[in-house]
Amino acid sequence: MRIGIIGTGGVARTLAGGLTAKGHDVALGSRDPQAALARDDVNRQTGTTLAGWAEANPSARIVTNAEAIAHGETVWNAASGTASIPALEAGAADLDGKILVDVANPIARSEAGVTLDPIGTDSLAEQIQRAFPGARVVKALNTVTAVVMIDPGQLAGGAHTLPICGNDEDAKREVAGWLADWFGWRDVLDIGDLTAARAQEAYLLFWLRLMQVNGSSIVSTKVVR
Amino acid sequence: MRIGIIGTGGVARTLAGGLTAKGHDVALGSRDPQAALARDDVNRQTGTTLAGWAEANPSARIVTNAEAIAHGETVWNAASGTASIPALEAGAADLDGKILVDVANPIARSEAGVTLDPIGTDSLAEQIQRAFPGARVVKALNTVTAVVMIDPGQLAGGAHTLPICGNDEDAKREVAGWLADWFGWRDVLDIGDLTAARAQEAYLLFWLRLMQVNGSSIVSTKVVR
Repeated sequence: MRIGIIGTGGVARTLAGGLTAKGHDVALGSRDPQAALARDDVNRQTGTTLAGWAEANPSARIVTNAEAIAHGETVWNAASGTASIPALEAGAADLDGKILVDVANPIARSEAGVTLDPIGTDSLAEQIQRAFPGARVVKALNTVTAVVMIDPGQLAGGAHTLPICGNDEDAKREVAGWLADWFGWRDVLDIGDLTAARAQEAYLLFWLRLMQVNGSSIVSTKVVR
Repeated sequence: MRIGIIGTGGVARTLAGGLTAKGHDVALGSRDPQAALARDDVNRQTGTTLAGWAEANPSARIVTNAEAIAHGETVWNAASGTASIPALEAGAADLDGKILVDVANPIARSEAGVTLDPIGTDSLAEQIQRAFPGARVVKALNTVTAVVMIDPGQLAGGAHTLPICGNDEDAKREVAGWLADWFGWRDVLDIGDLTAARAQEAYLLFWLRLMQVNGSSIVSTKVVR
């Protein structure tokens, strides 16, 4: 499958690695691919510069955001919260009818601490859906760290739960199928329409504390009843 | 132990039932006990009026908030979010040095949906700690429904996690011991100082969605790593 990923950071690269390993044709979108490839900062999650990562992963191309969106039969947003909508605007017309998996969290740091913006009565996923009404937005994977996204069976206790939400029932079913088939997610839980992204994003504040307590980002939760 | 509970609603009554069953001497605080006992509305969680509940539970007395605070060697806040600080102010001087277990969630309903107020960069538990600096505030039990609070082993899958937080390490250890000894909580997880109450309260938005999906409030999460 042709998949466009928005972003070239640790989450985007880890997803790209997991998807190319399954044989998918992946393009990662950047605002300025040449500038991004010239930067010498080492990403914490992948341990490499973008150029170093691209060299080691030749099957995943680094392109513009517009090209990544045009490339994808589905588009996955792994940009930062504030960068997401501007990045998607670069290929807005090509989003129509496509499943847009929103992985991002709108983390906002201030003197009062880490929070989300928006929070409570709105969410990044809803902002994206409003900005691109033709896209079929599904919020997924934002509740776990990147390596867990693509290998839930081996990490974070294995038997944990991935919440997803969105307004398009068919799109949610398709995404749940991909997550099961490609990465082995066994417990994908549909928590409702896209207003549930408020809850799914707010969960991140809880997850950040679990990460601090755990001393590692390999931590998740299993829903029990 | 003498325990003062702030509030006379479903959570307060359920906690009072669980605590008196363990032999504790419990007083429930109300702004106006006589008016509360005269009201004929049936509480959804307990299925009775307050007067009916009080008659069936004679060992738990309904008193003023000031009397409940004075009564308790520890005080448990089970009032609504907005009512919490005014209720506690009624016995402010008697809070000094006492462990104050904050069970409440500052739920705020608006046209935009259910949220919390405060949210993100502040929490009800921190507001309470600032208002009553002599109290030893521990946030606990706000992440599960009332019947699960007092019977976690039988409900919501049994093996689930209760997050707690607070600035006083001894108070947290004491509360964790009570929760284990009195109610059978096996996995009490200290998630940090009282700023972690922002995460613990924000979790409620996620929990409300789980409740909707589950079709029952008997739902919780187990932290896995």
